[in-house]
Amino acid sequence: MQRYFIPQIDWQGNEISIKGDDAHHIIRVMRNQVGDQIICNHQDGNAAICEITSLNQNIVHAAVIDWKAETVELPIAVTIAQGLPKGDKFDLILQKGTELGASRFIPVKMDRSIVVWDGRKIEKKMARFEKIVKEASEQSHRNKIPEIVLPMTVAELIHESVNYDVKIFAYEEEAKVEAHQSFAGIVSRIVDNQKVLLCIGPEGGFSEQEAKKLKENGFHAVRLGPRILRTETASLYALASLSYHLEEINGNHD
Amino acid sequence: MQRYFIPQIDWQGNEISIKGDDAHHIIRVMRNQVGDQIICNHQDGNAAICEITSLNQNIVHAAVIDWKAETVELPIAVTIAQGLPKGDKFDLILQKGTELGASRFIPVKMDRSIVVWDGRKIEKKMARFEKIVKEASEQSHRNKIPEIVLPMTVAELIHESVNYDVKIFAYEEEAKVEAHQSFAGIVSRIVDNQKVLLCIGPEGGFSEQEAKKLKENGFHAVRLGPRILRTETASLYALASLSYHLEEINGNHD
Repeated sequence: MQRYFIPQIDWQGNEISIKGDDAHHIIRVMRNQVGDQIICNHQDGNAAICEITSLNQNIVHAAVIDWKAETVELPIAVTIAQGLPKGDKFDLILQKGTELGASRFIPVKMDRSIVVWDGRKIEKKMARFEKIVKEASEQSHRNKIPEIVLPMTVAELIHESVNYDVKIFAYEEEAKVEAHQSFAGIVSRIVDNQKVLLCIGPEGGFSEQEAKKLKENGFHAVRLGPRILRTETASLYALASLSYHLEEINGNHD
Repeated sequence: MQRYFIPQIDWQGNEISIKGDDAHHIIRVMRNQVGDQIICNHQDGNAAICEITSLNQNIVHAAVIDWKAETVELPIAVTIAQGLPKGDKFDLILQKGTELGASRFIPVKMDRSIVVWDGRKIEKKMARFEKIVKEASEQSHRNKIPEIVLPMTVAELIHESVNYDVKIFAYEEEAKVEAHQSFAGIVSRIVDNQKVLLCIGPEGGFSEQEAKKLKENGFHAVRLGPRILRTETASLYALASLSYHLEEINGNHD
């Protein structure tokens, strides 16, 4: 059943008005009729099976039939702080990160980021990003759309990081040479409802200065397997591992 | 240090001749000089630090200085059998799957595959695929380049599957409704050097007939986390989880 995220303002009790792209999708793409069922997600994270009660050119009305009891969200809130990557890699990180359960994305201007996200174009860029995570949330049957915040500096990220329970950065060199906590060791101590901040460098990795600052501020350096991952693959490895450990191993009733 | 996979024929004892694209990369892209060091991978899976002894217009000679002791390969051999997906998704599966440690890829014609890989164009396609996995192997510092086989049918895959120790297919519906082995349960019983076959459906998933045949032939249905993953994300989730379990949890010395 197709799933739509409906803004709070369009819920009147158990009656929903669906407009814009979603109405277009229901009417023109899915060619739904009155009586057909869809899933509507509320911003509070709940989802309801709804029946279409009327359609016209650009608005669809639906009524809640039943609220769904689902556990499709990771038991923890994972934020991906990603060093600005080149090209359209951030699109891939958003789409795959959403499928894999991330709750928040922070683009971070780092020393070795080659691209600069132009201030004048940032509004248009953010609108595109919002569309990517909304569509990926619908496709993967998530109950929450991840948040994307405006780009920040490493100093701002460190300031922000006081709000997190567990802070990790993918830094192979560090993980190799010094006594360190392994990624699996850290994950095995995570408990439900904790906030996890995972920081990934851009193509060239973290500068030594950045790595030093992150360490001084409570970030643990980890390796994500023994192979060298591209910047856009690192967060996907980490999210899949978190899901596997918390949702598959811990949820394993063999 | 840059890494190159050198065909067996170009090794004469500890002397190596580097030709073609690799020579072009060393001379024109990296602008290496005599005396510079590179890593050369032998087809047997070993890698050597080598010193460039001469360069001319289109050939580079190098000599082995030291063989490297590396463990960057997964302790098991994972084959991804992927239902033919649309567009250029198979490119992404090959690139990311190689980074994440896959050893073999089998494209499989499935009931719900929408695309047909044209017989006349398959040679060109395979050449492009080979290039993707070679470059991804070099980039991720692997010692082995994954093998890509020609597309086969599900019947041929089942015939081929007798060579594997563990057979899994990602089939959410099955994993939901019946008594089943969890993915984590299966992974926790895998031992080093086993051959694992992981089968992923195309965009529309497996047909009931395909799922039935796979089950009858010893494939275990598993879910890969509670969210719905796109076809190109499923193998990445599974490979990251296998790496996390076998290389990070089992290799965890906290």
